Amino acid sequence: MKKITCLHPTWLIPVEPRACVLTQHALVICDDKINALLPSAQAYQDYPDAEHIVLAQQALLPGFVNLHAHSAMCLLRGLADDLNLMDWLTQHIWPAEKQHVSDEFVFDGSLQAMAEMLRGGTTTVNDMYFYDQAVARAGIASGMRTVVGCSVLDFPTAYADNADGYLAKAVAAHSAFAGQSGVSFKLAPHAPYTVGDESFKKVVALADKLAIGIHCHIHETADEVATSLQQYGMRPLERLHQLGLLSPQLIAAHMVHANDADLALLSQTGVHIAHNPASNLKLASGFARVHAMQALGINVGIGTDGSASNNKLDLLGDLRMAALLAKAESGNATALSAAVALEMATLAGAKALGMGDQIGSLVVGKQADLIAIDLSALETQPVYDPISQIVYAAGREQVSHVWVNGRCLMRERQLLTMEMGALLDKAAWWQTRIASQ
Amino acid sequence: MKKITCLHPTWLIPVEPRACVLTQHALVICDDKINALLPSAQAYQDYPDAEHIVLAQQALLPGFVNLHAHSAMCLLRGLADDLNLMDWLTQHIWPAEKQHVSDEFVFDGSLQAMAEMLRGGTTTVNDMYFYDQAVARAGIASGMRTVVGCSVLDFPTAYADNADGYLAKAVAAHSAFAGQSGVSFKLAPHAPYTVGDESFKKVVALADKLAIGIHCHIHETADEVATSLQQYGMRPLERLHQLGLLSPQLIAAHMVHANDADLALLSQTGVHIAHNPASNLKLASGFARVHAMQALGINVGIGTDGSASNNKLDLLGDLRMAALLAKAESGNATALSAAVALEMATLAGAKALGMGDQIGSLVVGKQADLIAIDLSALETQPVYDPISQIVYAAGREQVSHVWVNGRCLMRERQLLTMEMGALLDKAAWWQTRIASQ
Repeated sequence: MKKITCLHPTWLIPVEPRACVLTQHALVICDDKINALLPSAQAYQDYPDAEHIVLAQQALLPGFVNLHAHSAMCLLRGLADDLNLMDWLTQHIWPAEKQHVSDEFVFDGSLQAMAEMLRGGTTTVNDMYFYDQAVARAGIASGMRTVVGCSVLDFPTAYADNADGYLAKAVAAHSAFAGQSGVSFKLAPHAPYTVGDESFKKVVALADKLAIGIHCHIHETADEVATSLQQYGMRPLERLHQLGLLSPQLIAAHMVHANDADLALLSQTGVHIAHNPASNLKLASGFARVHAMQALGINVGIGTDGSASNNKLDLLGDLRMAALLAKAESGNATALSAAVALEMATLAGAKALGMGDQIGSLVVGKQADLIAIDLSALETQPVYDPISQIVYAAGREQVSHVWVNGRCLMRERQLLTMEMGALLDKAAWWQTRIASQ
Repeated sequence: MKKITCLHPTWLIPVEPRACVLTQHALVICDDKINALLPSAQAYQDYPDAEHIVLAQQALLPGFVNLHAHSAMCLLRGLADDLNLMDWLTQHIWPAEKQHVSDEFVFDGSLQAMAEMLRGGTTTVNDMYFYDQAVARAGIASGMRTVVGCSVLDFPTAYADNADGYLAKAVAAHSAFAGQSGVSFKLAPHAPYTVGDESFKKVVALADKLAIGIHCHIHETADEVATSLQQYGMRPLERLHQLGLLSPQLIAAHMVHANDADLALLSQTGVHIAHNPASNLKLASGFARVHAMQALGINVGIGTDGSASNNKLDLLGDLRMAALLAKAESGNATALSAAVALEMATLAGAKALGMGDQIGSLVVGKQADLIAIDLSALETQPVYDPISQIVYAAGREQVSHVWVNGRCLMRERQLLTMEMGALLDKAAWWQTRIASQ
């Protein structure tokens, strides 16, 4: 017996086609999939026995895809701000991680981050961290669509000793969760400056073998590019190209420092970009050339980065920031319109993950990953253009409902898979432990 | 009989001294003023008959000062996005204003904007618009501390025909509200490209006579500077200097395009800057050199600009954006720390308004303009550093209480001076009227 639910929002924003807003329409969920978009009156007629939910103050749209996150780091949020990237990493984050990061830390931190993301309308996270199986378990516990990026480094952490160690753990995690709905894997070599050529080659070979994608920090800072020119005689992107990484199976996180040749290479090879507007500012990495990328047809999604460098896991806030920054960076106020920003945070993210045919827009046959945003607050009234209100004026607290795979994970702001008191208790427990050391 | 209230927050953040966080402390309000900051236990002992309010999950801090707003424009929010400044102004905003702006529009729009600002922790607004008396009446109705900027232009609008007309209306408004607590005035010549030399001279003379300050858009776009060089043979700032405008009585809104000579002149003359980070991005105006300004000792506060070009009246969001942008613009992640951002949005704004001895920090003898921000939400847990959590992680929806002049205007998210249903009805009424034309 199939479960059928008809959602009747005031505005239905399918993202495909771009800038489309349907009114007096319903979306029909059948089990885990989108079954129909049709006039509301017809939905009542065609599906008399379905559950009908009227979302009278809401816009219904695809859930957001967070294309670059280190979820568990929310337990370190605010521990070290206003620092340069390398000081931040080497003096604060890496030592704290060395001392505290464990399977338990990653599960608890990821679960808290997923709760925050779901509360803000993010339904898919492309994570990159350690203790891959803990991330996967958190994804299953929260119900969030989770892409586990299995970190690979050439130096030891509490998780593994060297590239082979990380890769072995990735293989084990991939195998342990094979066939698990809603959980998938990527290999995540950390960055060109922390992973050597031999390790990159192993990553490419293993990704091929497992038929999974790759997720890597690339061209985040000017220093990274300069160091590579000294050490390898070429820019990191060129080096990764020679190593066989550049393809539509790669998500390049950041890509702040891209010259025209870099952009041409990205465009030719079909690499996807995870743009992290807030983190790029906070760590003074710079201004990514998003408008130029999009003009070349490069697919750009949006990530929050970890909440120790943002410090929010707020895709709605970050898609607004992406739209605002692209205008100033390109000197063109017509660049990156509200509709394009919304597409970046949904469909572009889905495409980057190789899930463009499964999620990212409200199209019949896709998985039902949906969110409702309540525009009745004073802050979003009057509504001349619901897409503009969502992108430029709404706050994440206006997300009222979230569905992943047709399953309701938040209803009227109440999370249904997680208990808020337990999450807050865990956060307090970790605060005591981390702050005392 | 004096009314005494003791507030017992978890964290007391007075802003002066910078980065100070007091715990187990209370703040005592006596009528409209801050009477004491003292250990919480002592407050119970010294003030046994006072009202004691425990803010167990909150930080208590000065209310935000919105240093540049066109409040009533919230009724036009989302009507025209993703456009260049001059297209936006000449094709959309000015025509809409010509058709709709009236005393009623400005009162209703300002009241809605003030409700939004109070809900987000802004206790003072430095406005600039038309129908000065309507803005003042909205300020009195809302209870918000309101600085009415009386616009002056060389061209006619529905409000006045020419500079003399605007100035006469400014004089009338200033006189009508003389002695009214919480309401004050500034003259607001629109910009160097809309106001001629003779009019600027009249503005300076009248401001002197009334002993009030001046608020003007200056160096918002590269085009403004280029046009001035062609028309006057000098940069706008130099022209305004010759006309006698540059002094500590001037608030220069935007100041995006400032070369080193401009900055030196601003520093020498003591001009205050209203930095509008979101609007400067959205209209592709550029990146203000805030870190360089602060290094020269220039006083920089934060403004939202109108909500047709932001599109939020969210000081908390904009102070975060100011901190993030200053790091990327200066290439220095240690620039504009969280504590400095908080100071910009409070004390620096107060100083710019000539109210540095009255508001902007929690110091005994100042007016009690205060806000409480609830940090118990998952999004701001754990709390290693409350200032970091407020600036980088909290959302405006976490503002729980607001006091202006010792009067509680919002308690547990409920506005006490305005009725939400009535505000929403007005917004809906204006939407119907404006969208149909």
